[in-house]
Amino acid sequence: MTGGTLYGIGLGPGDPELVTLKAARLLATTPVIAFFAAAGRPGHARTIADGLIGPAAELIRMDYPFTLEIAVEDPRYRAGIARFYDDCAARLAAALARGRDCAVLCEGDPFFYGSFMYLFDRLHRQHPTRIVPGITGMAGCWSAAAAPMTQGDDMLCVLPGTLPKAALVDRLRLADAAVIMKVGRNLAKIREALAAAGLTDRALYVERGTMAGERIIPLADKSDDQAPYFALVLVPGRRGPR
Amino acid sequence: MTGGTLYGIGLGPGDPELVTLKAARLLATTPVIAFFAAAGRPGHARTIADGLIGPAAELIRMDYPFTLEIAVEDPRYRAGIARFYDDCAARLAAALARGRDCAVLCEGDPFFYGSFMYLFDRLHRQHPTRIVPGITGMAGCWSAAAAPMTQGDDMLCVLPGTLPKAALVDRLRLADAAVIMKVGRNLAKIREALAAAGLTDRALYVERGTMAGERIIPLADKSDDQAPYFALVLVPGRRGPR
Repeated sequence: MTGGTLYGIGLGPGDPELVTLKAARLLATTPVIAFFAAAGRPGHARTIADGLIGPAAELIRMDYPFTLEIAVEDPRYRAGIARFYDDCAARLAAALARGRDCAVLCEGDPFFYGSFMYLFDRLHRQHPTRIVPGITGMAGCWSAAAAPMTQGDDMLCVLPGTLPKAALVDRLRLADAAVIMKVGRNLAKIREALAAAGLTDRALYVERGTMAGERIIPLADKSDDQAPYFALVLVPGRRGPR
Repeated sequence: MTGGTLYGIGLGPGDPELVTLKAARLLATTPVIAFFAAAGRPGHARTIADGLIGPAAELIRMDYPFTLEIAVEDPRYRAGIARFYDDCAARLAAALARGRDCAVLCEGDPFFYGSFMYLFDRLHRQHPTRIVPGITGMAGCWSAAAAPMTQGDDMLCVLPGTLPKAALVDRLRLADAAVIMKVGRNLAKIREALAAAGLTDRALYVERGTMAGERIIPLADKSDDQAPYFALVLVPGRRGPR
Protein backbone atom coordinates (compact mmCIF):
# COMPACT_ATOMS: atom_id res chain seq x y z
CA MET A 1 0.00 0.00 0.00
CA THR A 2 1.48 3.33 -1.07
CA GLY A 3 0.31 6.84 -1.78
CA GLY A 4 -2.05 8.97 0.28
CA THR A 5 -4.09 7.89 3.29
CA LEU A 6 -7.89 7.71 3.20
CA TYR A 7 -9.65 9.15 6.26
CA GLY A 8 -13.29 8.62 7.19
CA ILE A 9 -14.04 11.51 9.49
CA GLY A 10 -17.05 11.50 11.81
CA LEU A 11 -18.48 14.99 12.30
CA GLY A 12 -21.29 14.34 14.77
CA PRO A 13 -25.01 14.99 14.41
CA GLY A 14 -25.12 18.62 13.34
CA ASP A 15 -23.82 21.06 15.98
CA PRO A 16 -20.37 22.08 14.63
CA GLU A 17 -19.05 22.19 18.21
CA LEU A 18 -19.66 18.44 18.49
CA VAL A 19 -16.75 17.80 16.10
CA THR A 20 -13.70 16.24 17.80
CA LEU A 21 -10.30 17.92 18.08
CA LYS A 22 -8.90 15.17 15.86
CA ALA A 23 -11.47 15.74 13.14
CA ALA A 24 -10.89 19.50 13.31
CA ARG A 25 -7.14 19.04 12.93
CA LEU A 26 -7.54 16.71 9.96
CA LEU A 27 -10.12 18.96 8.26
CA ALA A 28 -7.70 21.89 8.52
CA THR A 29 -4.73 19.99 7.10
CA THR A 30 -5.95 17.30 4.67
CA PRO A 31 -5.42 18.38 1.05
CA VAL A 32 -8.44 16.63 -0.45
CA ILE A 33 -11.88 16.75 1.20
CA ALA A 34 -14.72 14.66 -0.24
CA PHE A 35 -18.39 14.72 0.70
CA PHE A 36 -21.73 13.29 -0.35
CA ALA A 37 -24.66 15.57 -1.11
CA ALA A 38 -28.11 15.39 -2.62
CA ALA A 39 -28.24 17.15 -5.98
CA GLY A 40 -28.75 20.89 -5.54
CA ARG A 41 -28.19 20.76 -1.76
CA PRO A 42 -25.08 21.89 0.14
CA GLY A 43 -24.63 18.49 1.86
CA HIS A 44 -25.21 18.05 5.60
CA ALA A 45 -21.69 16.89 6.47
CA ARG A 46 -20.20 19.70 4.34
CA THR A 47 -22.34 22.22 6.24
CA ILE A 48 -21.17 20.91 9.64
CA ALA A 49 -17.53 21.18 8.51
CA ASP A 50 -17.96 24.63 6.98
CA GLY A 51 -15.67 26.68 9.22
CA LEU A 52 -13.08 23.92 9.66
CA ILE A 53 -11.84 23.04 6.16
CA GLY A 54 -8.47 24.51 5.16
CA PRO A 55 -8.54 27.28 2.53
CA ALA A 56 -6.34 25.37 0.07
CA ALA A 57 -8.28 22.10 0.19
CA GLU A 58 -9.40 20.48 -3.04
CA LEU A 59 -13.09 19.59 -2.66
CA ILE A 60 -14.57 16.47 -4.25
CA ARG A 61 -18.35 16.70 -4.28
CA MET A 62 -20.16 13.38 -4.71
CA ASP A 63 -23.77 13.99 -5.80
CA TYR A 64 -26.12 11.09 -5.11
CA PRO A 65 -27.58 10.04 -8.48
CA PHE A 66 -31.06 9.81 -6.94
CA THR A 67 -32.65 10.08 -3.52
CA LEU A 68 -36.38 9.39 -3.54
CA GLU A 69 -37.07 9.06 -7.28
CA ILE A 70 -36.30 5.31 -7.34
CA ALA A 71 -37.41 2.99 -4.52
CA VAL A 72 -34.67 1.10 -2.66
CA GLU A 73 -36.37 -2.20 -3.64
CA ASP A 74 -36.15 -1.38 -7.36
CA PRO A 75 -33.29 -3.34 -9.05
CA ARG A 76 -32.33 -0.13 -10.86
CA TYR A 77 -31.62 1.41 -7.44
CA ARG A 78 -29.06 -1.19 -6.47
CA ALA A 79 -27.31 -1.14 -9.83
CA GLY A 80 -27.32 2.65 -10.03
CA ILE A 81 -26.04 3.19 -6.51
CA ALA A 82 -23.28 0.58 -6.94
CA ARG A 83 -22.09 2.36 -10.11
CA PHE A 84 -22.17 5.65 -8.22
CA TYR A 85 -19.98 4.34 -5.38
CA ASP A 86 -17.61 2.74 -7.91
CA ASP A 87 -17.23 6.13 -9.58
CA CYS A 88 -16.69 7.96 -6.27
CA ALA A 89 -14.08 5.41 -5.21
CA ALA A 90 -12.27 5.85 -8.56
CA ARG A 91 -12.11 9.62 -8.06
CA LEU A 92 -10.63 9.17 -4.58
CA ALA A 93 -8.26 6.42 -5.74
CA ALA A 94 -6.86 8.80 -8.37
CA ALA A 95 -6.07 11.42 -5.74
CA LEU A 96 -4.63 8.81 -3.35
CA ALA A 97 -2.43 7.44 -6.15
CA ARG A 98 -0.98 10.93 -6.56
CA GLY A 99 0.07 10.74 -2.88
CA ARG A 100 -2.66 13.06 -1.66
CA ASP A 101 -4.38 12.29 1.64
CA CYS A 102 -8.19 12.30 1.25
CA ALA A 103 -10.75 12.92 3.99
CA VAL A 104 -14.36 11.85 3.51
CA LEU A 105 -16.80 13.89 5.62
CA CYS A 106 -19.30 11.74 7.52
CA GLU A 107 -22.35 12.84 9.49
CA GLY A 108 -22.44 11.12 12.87
CA ASP A 109 -19.98 8.20 13.01
CA PRO A 110 -18.46 6.74 9.81
CA PHE A 111 -19.17 3.10 10.71
CA PHE A 112 -22.66 3.56 12.16
CA TYR A 113 -25.22 3.55 9.29
CA GLY A 114 -23.08 5.72 7.00
CA SER A 115 -22.45 5.88 3.23
CA PHE A 116 -18.70 6.08 3.83
CA MET A 117 -18.65 2.30 4.35
CA TYR A 118 -19.33 1.81 0.63
CA LEU A 119 -16.14 3.72 -0.17
CA PHE A 120 -14.21 1.94 2.59
CA ASP A 121 -15.21 -1.42 1.07
CA ARG A 122 -13.86 -0.37 -2.31
CA LEU A 123 -10.61 1.30 -1.16
CA HIS A 124 -9.27 -0.06 2.13
CA ARG A 125 -7.41 -3.03 0.64
CA GLN A 126 -5.35 -0.81 -1.69
CA HIS A 127 -4.90 2.32 0.43
CA PRO A 128 -3.94 3.02 4.05
CA THR A 129 -7.19 3.93 5.81
CA ARG A 130 -7.94 5.59 9.15
CA ILE A 131 -11.31 6.10 10.82
CA VAL A 132 -12.05 9.00 13.16
CA PRO A 133 -15.16 8.19 15.23
CA GLY A 134 -17.88 10.79 15.61
CA ILE A 135 -20.70 11.59 18.02
CA THR A 136 -23.65 9.51 16.84
CA GLY A 137 -27.00 11.11 16.12
CA MET A 138 -28.53 9.07 18.93
CA ALA A 139 -26.02 10.36 21.54
CA GLY A 140 -26.62 13.92 20.36
CA CYS A 141 -30.35 13.35 20.75
CA TRP A 142 -30.35 11.70 24.18
CA SER A 143 -28.02 14.43 25.47
CA ALA A 144 -30.26 17.18 24.06
CA ALA A 145 -33.28 15.40 25.57
CA ALA A 146 -31.51 15.11 28.96
CA ALA A 147 -32.59 11.46 28.89
CA PRO A 148 -30.18 9.04 30.64
CA MET A 149 -30.19 5.92 28.47
CA THR A 150 -28.35 2.93 29.91
CA GLN A 151 -26.99 1.94 33.31
CA GLY A 152 -25.68 -1.21 34.95
CA ASP A 153 -26.91 -4.32 33.14
CA ASP A 154 -29.18 -2.49 30.68
CA MET A 155 -29.30 -3.81 27.13
CA LEU A 156 -29.60 -1.18 24.39
CA CYS A 157 -31.20 -2.05 21.07
CA VAL A 158 -30.72 0.19 18.02
CA LEU A 159 -33.39 -0.52 15.42
CA PRO A 160 -34.14 0.94 11.99
CA GLY A 161 -37.81 1.93 11.81
CA THR A 162 -37.86 0.34 8.36
CA LEU A 163 -38.06 -3.18 9.91
CA PRO A 164 -41.41 -5.02 9.79
CA LYS A 165 -43.63 -4.44 12.80
CA ALA A 166 -43.27 -7.99 14.14
CA ALA A 167 -39.46 -7.74 14.03
CA LEU A 168 -39.61 -4.43 15.90
CA VAL A 169 -41.87 -5.90 18.60
CA ASP A 170 -39.70 -9.01 19.12
CA ARG A 171 -36.58 -6.88 19.59
CA LEU A 172 -38.20 -4.16 21.70
CA ARG A 173 -39.53 -6.81 24.11
CA LEU A 174 -35.96 -7.95 24.88
CA ALA A 175 -34.54 -4.42 25.20
CA ASP A 176 -34.14 -2.31 28.33
CA ALA A 177 -33.40 0.81 26.30
CA ALA A 178 -34.01 1.41 22.61
CA VAL A 179 -33.28 3.83 19.81
CA ILE A 180 -35.38 3.70 16.66
CA MET A 181 -33.70 5.30 13.66
CA LYS A 182 -35.06 6.20 10.21
CA VAL A 183 -38.47 7.16 11.54
CA GLY A 184 -39.80 9.00 8.45
CA ARG A 185 -42.81 7.25 6.97
CA ASN A 186 -42.64 4.47 9.59
CA LEU A 187 -43.98 6.39 12.57
CA ALA A 188 -47.45 4.84 12.68
CA LYS A 189 -45.92 1.34 12.60
CA ILE A 190 -43.34 2.31 15.23
CA ARG A 191 -46.12 3.53 17.55
CA GLU A 192 -47.92 0.20 17.20
CA ALA A 193 -44.72 -1.75 17.92
CA LEU A 194 -43.93 0.34 21.01
CA ALA A 195 -47.47 -0.16 22.30
CA ALA A 196 -47.24 -3.93 21.77
CA ALA A 197 -43.97 -3.97 23.72
CA GLY A 198 -45.45 -1.82 26.51
CA LEU A 199 -43.01 1.04 25.93
CA THR A 200 -45.26 3.89 24.77
CA ASP A 201 -45.04 5.79 28.07
CA ARG A 202 -41.23 5.97 27.97
CA ALA A 203 -40.84 6.93 24.29
CA LEU A 204 -39.52 10.34 23.25
CA TYR A 205 -39.73 11.80 19.75
CA VAL A 206 -36.68 13.83 18.63
CA GLU A 207 -36.48 15.90 15.44
CA ARG A 208 -33.35 17.84 14.34
CA GLY A 209 -31.44 16.90 17.52
CA THR A 210 -28.58 19.36 18.37
CA MET A 211 -29.60 21.65 15.46
CA ALA A 212 -31.70 24.76 14.84
CA GLY A 213 -35.36 23.78 15.03
CA GLU A 214 -34.69 20.95 17.50
CA ARG A 215 -37.93 19.44 18.81
CA ILE A 216 -38.14 16.92 21.67
CA ILE A 217 -41.51 15.73 22.98
CA PRO A 218 -43.02 12.60 24.51
CA LEU A 219 -44.07 10.48 21.54
CA ALA A 220 -47.55 10.23 23.07
CA ASP A 221 -47.88 14.02 22.71
CA LYS A 222 -47.15 13.99 18.98
CA SER A 223 -50.55 14.29 17.35
CA ASP A 224 -49.69 13.27 13.77
CA ASP A 225 -47.57 10.65 12.04
CA GLN A 226 -45.53 13.04 9.87
CA ALA A 227 -41.78 12.81 10.56
CA PRO A 228 -38.56 13.46 8.67
CA TYR A 229 -36.37 10.47 7.75
CA PHE A 230 -33.72 11.40 10.32
CA ALA A 231 -36.09 11.82 13.28
CA LEU A 232 -35.42 9.40 16.15
CA VAL A 233 -37.47 7.72 18.84
CA LEU A 234 -35.65 7.18 22.16
CA VAL A 235 -36.74 4.75 24.86
CA PRO A 236 -34.55 5.49 27.90
CA GLY A 237 -33.68 2.43 29.96
CA ARG A 238 -32.11 2.15 33.41
CA ARG A 239 -33.30 -0.78 35.48
CA GLY A 240 -30.58 -0.32 38.10
CA PRO A 241 -30.45 1.60 41.38
CA ARG A 242 -30.62 5.36 41.36
CA MET B 1 -33.73 27.06 39.34
CA THR B 2 -30.99 29.55 40.07
CA GLY B 3 -27.24 29.52 40.58
CA GLY B 4 -24.64 27.75 38.48
CA THR B 5 -25.22 25.27 35.67
CA LEU B 6 -24.23 21.62 35.99
CA TYR B 7 -22.51 20.14 32.93
CA GLY B 8 -21.98 16.46 32.26
CA ILE B 9 -19.11 16.42 29.78
CA GLY B 10 -18.35 13.40 27.64
CA LEU B 11 -14.61 13.02 26.96
CA GLY B 12 -14.54 9.98 24.70
CA PRO B 13 -12.77 6.66 25.23
CA GLY B 14 -9.22 7.72 26.02
CA ASP B 15 -7.44 9.47 23.13
CA PRO B 16 -7.41 13.15 24.21
CA GLU B 17 -7.92 14.19 20.57
CA LEU B 18 -11.32 12.46 20.60
CA VAL B 19 -12.67 15.22 22.87
CA THR B 20 -15.19 17.53 21.13
CA LEU B 21 -14.62 21.24 20.53
CA LYS B 22 -17.55 21.93 22.88
CA ALA B 23 -16.08 19.85 25.68
CA ALA B 24 -12.67 21.51 25.19
CA ARG B 25 -14.24 24.98 25.39
CA LEU B 26 -16.16 24.12 28.56
CA LEU B 27 -13.14 22.47 30.21
CA ALA B 28 -11.11 25.62 29.61
CA THR B 29 -13.73 27.98 31.02
CA THR B 30 -15.79 26.21 33.70
CA PRO B 31 -14.71 27.31 37.18
CA VAL B 32 -15.39 24.01 38.98
CA ILE B 33 -14.32 20.66 37.51
CA ALA B 34 -15.39 17.43 39.26
CA PHE B 35 -14.27 13.89 38.52
CA PHE B 36 -14.56 10.37 39.85
CA ALA B 37 -11.46 8.31 40.61
CA ALA B 38 -10.51 5.08 42.32
CA ALA B 39 -8.60 5.75 45.54
CA GLY B 40 -4.92 6.35 44.84
CA ARG B 41 -5.41 6.54 41.06
CA PRO B 42 -5.39 9.69 38.91
CA GLY B 43 -8.84 8.99 37.43
CA HIS B 44 -9.27 8.02 33.78
CA ALA B 45 -11.51 10.98 32.81
CA ARG B 46 -9.17 13.38 34.61
CA THR B 47 -6.24 11.95 32.66
CA ILE B 48 -8.03 12.42 29.31
CA ALA B 49 -8.81 16.05 30.21
CA ASP B 50 -5.31 16.79 31.49
CA GLY B 51 -4.19 19.41 28.98
CA LEU B 52 -7.60 21.02 28.61
CA ILE B 53 -8.63 22.20 32.10
CA GLY B 54 -8.18 25.93 32.79
CA PRO B 55 -5.37 26.89 35.21
CA ALA B 56 -7.73 28.59 37.70
CA ALA B 57 -10.26 25.75 37.91
CA GLU B 58 -11.29 24.45 41.33
CA LEU B 59 -11.05 20.64 41.22
CA ILE B 60 -13.49 18.42 43.11
CA ARG B 61 -12.11 14.89 43.34
CA MET B 62 -14.69 12.21 44.12
CA ASP B 63 -12.98 9.03 45.35
CA TYR B 64 -15.07 5.90 45.02
CA PRO B 65 -15.42 4.42 48.54
CA PHE B 66 -14.67 0.94 47.19
CA THR B 67 -14.12 -0.76 43.86
CA LEU B 68 -13.67 -4.51 44.10
CA GLU B 69 -13.56 -5.00 47.89
CA ILE B 70 -17.37 -5.38 48.20
CA ALA B 71 -19.39 -7.31 45.60
CA VAL B 72 -22.12 -5.39 43.77
CA GLU B 73 -24.69 -7.92 45.06
CA ASP B 74 -23.78 -7.20 48.70
CA PRO B 75 -26.42 -4.95 50.38
CA ARG B 76 -23.55 -2.96 51.90
CA TYR B 77 -22.48 -2.06 48.35
CA ARG B 78 -25.78 -0.47 47.44
CA ALA B 79 -26.08 1.46 50.71
CA GLY B 80 -22.46 2.59 50.62
CA ILE B 81 -22.53 3.71 47.01
CA ALA B 82 -25.80 5.60 47.48
CA ARG B 83 -24.30 7.51 50.43
CA PHE B 84 -21.25 8.25 48.30
CA TYR B 85 -23.30 9.74 45.45
CA ASP B 86 -25.41 11.72 47.96
CA ASP B 87 -22.21 13.20 49.35
CA CYS B 88 -20.81 14.02 45.90
CA ALA B 89 -24.09 15.66 44.89
CA ALA B 90 -24.03 17.77 48.09
CA ARG B 91 -20.52 19.00 47.30
CA LEU B 92 -21.59 20.01 43.78
CA ALA B 93 -24.86 21.55 45.02
CA ALA B 94 -22.88 23.78 47.39
CA ALA B 95 -20.76 25.11 44.51
CA LEU B 96 -23.80 25.52 42.25
CA ALA B 97 -25.62 27.43 45.02
CA ARG B 98 -22.73 29.89 45.08
CA GLY B 99 -23.43 30.56 41.39
CA ARG B 100 -20.44 28.54 40.16
CA ASP B 101 -20.86 26.44 37.01
CA CYS B 102 -19.68 22.85 37.61
CA ALA B 103 -18.47 20.38 34.96
CA VAL B 104 -18.36 16.67 35.73
CA LEU B 105 -15.80 14.80 33.62
CA CYS B 106 -17.20 11.63 32.02
CA GLU B 107 -15.34 8.90 30.14
CA GLY B 108 -17.16 8.06 26.91
CA ASP B 109 -20.68 9.52 26.86
CA PRO B 110 -22.34 10.77 30.07
CA PHE B 111 -25.65 8.95 29.50
CA PHE B 112 -24.23 5.65 28.22
CA TYR B 113 -23.30 3.43 31.20
CA GLY B 114 -21.76 6.28 33.20
CA SER B 115 -21.59 7.19 36.90
CA PHE B 116 -22.56 10.80 36.09
CA MET B 117 -26.20 9.68 35.85
CA TYR B 118 -26.27 9.16 39.63
CA LEU B 119 -25.35 12.82 40.10
CA PHE B 120 -27.78 13.92 37.39
CA ASP B 121 -30.60 12.08 39.21
CA ARG B 122 -29.83 13.94 42.42
CA LEU B 123 -29.28 17.44 40.97
CA HIS B 124 -31.16 18.08 37.74
CA ARG B 125 -34.46 19.07 39.35
CA GLN B 126 -32.85 21.86 41.38
CA HIS B 127 -30.12 23.07 39.01
CA PRO B 128 -29.94 23.91 35.30
CA THR B 129 -28.20 20.95 33.66
CA ARG B 130 -26.60 20.49 30.23
CA ILE B 131 -25.16 17.32 28.72
CA VAL B 132 -22.31 17.28 26.21
CA PRO B 133 -22.26 13.94 24.39
CA GLY B 134 -18.99 12.09 23.97
CA ILE B 135 -17.51 9.46 21.66
CA THR B 136 -18.53 6.13 23.15
CA GLY B 137 -15.96 3.47 23.93
CA MET B 138 -17.59 1.19 21.39
CA ALA B 139 -17.28 3.77 18.56
CA GLY B 140 -13.65 4.35 19.49
CA CYS B 141 -13.07 0.60 19.34
CA TRP B 142 -14.83 -0.15 16.05
CA SER B 143 -13.00 2.77 14.43
CA ALA B 144 -9.65 1.57 15.76
CA ALA B 145 -10.49 -1.94 14.54
CA ALA B 146 -11.49 -0.61 11.08
CA ALA B 147 -14.64 -2.72 11.49
CA PRO B 148 -17.75 -1.28 9.81
CA MET B 149 -20.61 -2.05 12.23
CA THR B 150 -24.11 -1.29 10.91
CA GLN B 151 -25.64 -0.56 7.53
CA GLY B 152 -29.12 -0.39 6.06
CA ASP B 153 -31.62 -2.34 8.17
CA ASP B 154 -29.05 -3.78 10.59
CA MET B 155 -30.06 -4.00 14.24
CA LEU B 156 -27.32 -3.30 16.79
CA CYS B 157 -27.48 -4.83 20.24
CA VAL B 158 -25.34 -3.47 23.08
CA LEU B 159 -25.05 -6.03 25.87
CA PRO B 160 -23.25 -6.04 29.21
CA GLY B 161 -21.18 -9.22 29.54
CA THR B 162 -22.51 -9.47 33.09
CA LEU B 163 -25.86 -10.82 31.82
CA PRO B 164 -26.59 -14.56 32.29
CA LYS B 165 -25.54 -16.72 29.37
CA ALA B 166 -29.10 -17.56 28.27
CA ALA B 167 -30.00 -13.85 28.14
CA LEU B 168 -26.92 -13.15 26.04
CA VAL B 169 -27.77 -15.94 23.60
CA ASP B 170 -31.42 -14.84 23.18
CA ARG B 171 -30.38 -11.28 22.37
CA LEU B 172 -27.41 -12.17 20.17
CA ARG B 173 -29.66 -14.42 18.05
CA LEU B 174 -31.85 -11.41 17.15
CA ALA B 175 -28.96 -9.03 16.50
CA ASP B 176 -27.23 -8.26 13.19
CA ALA B 177 -24.38 -6.46 14.95
CA ALA B 178 -23.44 -6.58 18.61
CA VAL B 179 -21.19 -4.95 21.17
CA ILE B 180 -20.50 -6.75 24.43
CA MET B 181 -19.32 -4.44 27.21
CA LYS B 182 -17.86 -5.19 30.64
CA VAL B 183 -16.00 -8.26 29.44
CA GLY B 184 -13.68 -8.74 32.44
CA ARG B 185 -14.35 -12.01 34.23
CA ASN B 186 -17.17 -12.87 31.83
CA LEU B 187 -15.11 -13.81 28.79
CA ALA B 188 -15.54 -17.59 29.00
CA LYS B 189 -19.33 -17.17 29.25
CA ILE B 190 -19.33 -14.63 26.40
CA ARG B 191 -17.47 -17.08 24.17
CA GLU B 192 -20.07 -19.78 24.86
CA ALA B 193 -22.93 -17.37 24.13
CA LEU B 194 -21.35 -16.23 20.84
CA ALA B 195 -20.83 -19.85 19.80
CA ALA B 196 -24.46 -20.71 20.59
CA ALA B 197 -25.60 -17.76 18.46
CA GLY B 198 -23.25 -18.73 15.60
CA LEU B 199 -21.23 -15.52 15.83
CA THR B 200 -17.77 -16.71 16.90
CA ASP B 201 -16.23 -16.19 13.45
CA ARG B 202 -17.20 -12.52 13.32
CA ALA B 203 -16.20 -11.57 16.89
CA LEU B 204 -13.29 -9.21 17.60
CA TYR B 205 -11.67 -8.70 20.98
CA VAL B 206 -10.57 -5.11 21.78
CA GLU B 207 -8.49 -4.07 24.77
CA ARG B 208 -7.53 -0.44 25.55
CA GLY B 209 -9.18 0.87 22.36
CA THR B 210 -7.75 4.26 21.17
CA MET B 211 -5.09 4.18 23.94
CA ALA B 212 -1.48 3.16 24.43
CA GLY B 213 -1.31 -0.63 24.52
CA GLU B 214 -4.33 -1.02 22.23
CA ARG B 215 -4.88 -4.65 21.24
CA ILE B 216 -7.37 -5.81 18.59
CA ILE B 217 -7.55 -9.46 17.57
CA PRO B 218 -10.15 -11.96 16.37
CA LEU B 219 -11.69 -13.37 19.54
CA ALA B 220 -10.97 -16.87 18.24
CA ASP B 221 -7.24 -16.02 18.33
CA LYS B 222 -7.28 -15.04 22.01
CA SER B 223 -5.88 -18.05 23.80
CA ASP B 224 -6.90 -17.28 27.39
CA ASP B 225 -9.94 -15.90 29.19
CA GLN B 226 -8.16 -13.10 31.05
CA ALA B 227 -9.56 -9.66 30.17
CA PRO B 228 -9.80 -6.26 31.83
CA TYR B 229 -13.27 -4.99 32.84
CA PHE B 230 -13.33 -2.38 30.06
CA ALA B 231 -12.37 -4.74 27.22
CA LEU B 232 -15.04 -5.04 24.51
CA VAL B 233 -16.17 -7.71 22.08
CA LEU B 234 -17.41 -6.40 18.72
CA VAL B 235 -19.53 -8.36 16.26
CA PRO B 236 -19.67 -6.29 13.06
CA GLY B 237 -22.97 -6.52 11.19
CA ARG B 238 -23.91 -5.39 7.66
CA ARG B 239 -26.43 -7.57 5.91
CA GLY B 240 -26.97 -5.03 3.12
CA PRO B 241 -25.36 -4.57 -0.30
CA ARG B 242 -21.73 -3.60 -0.54
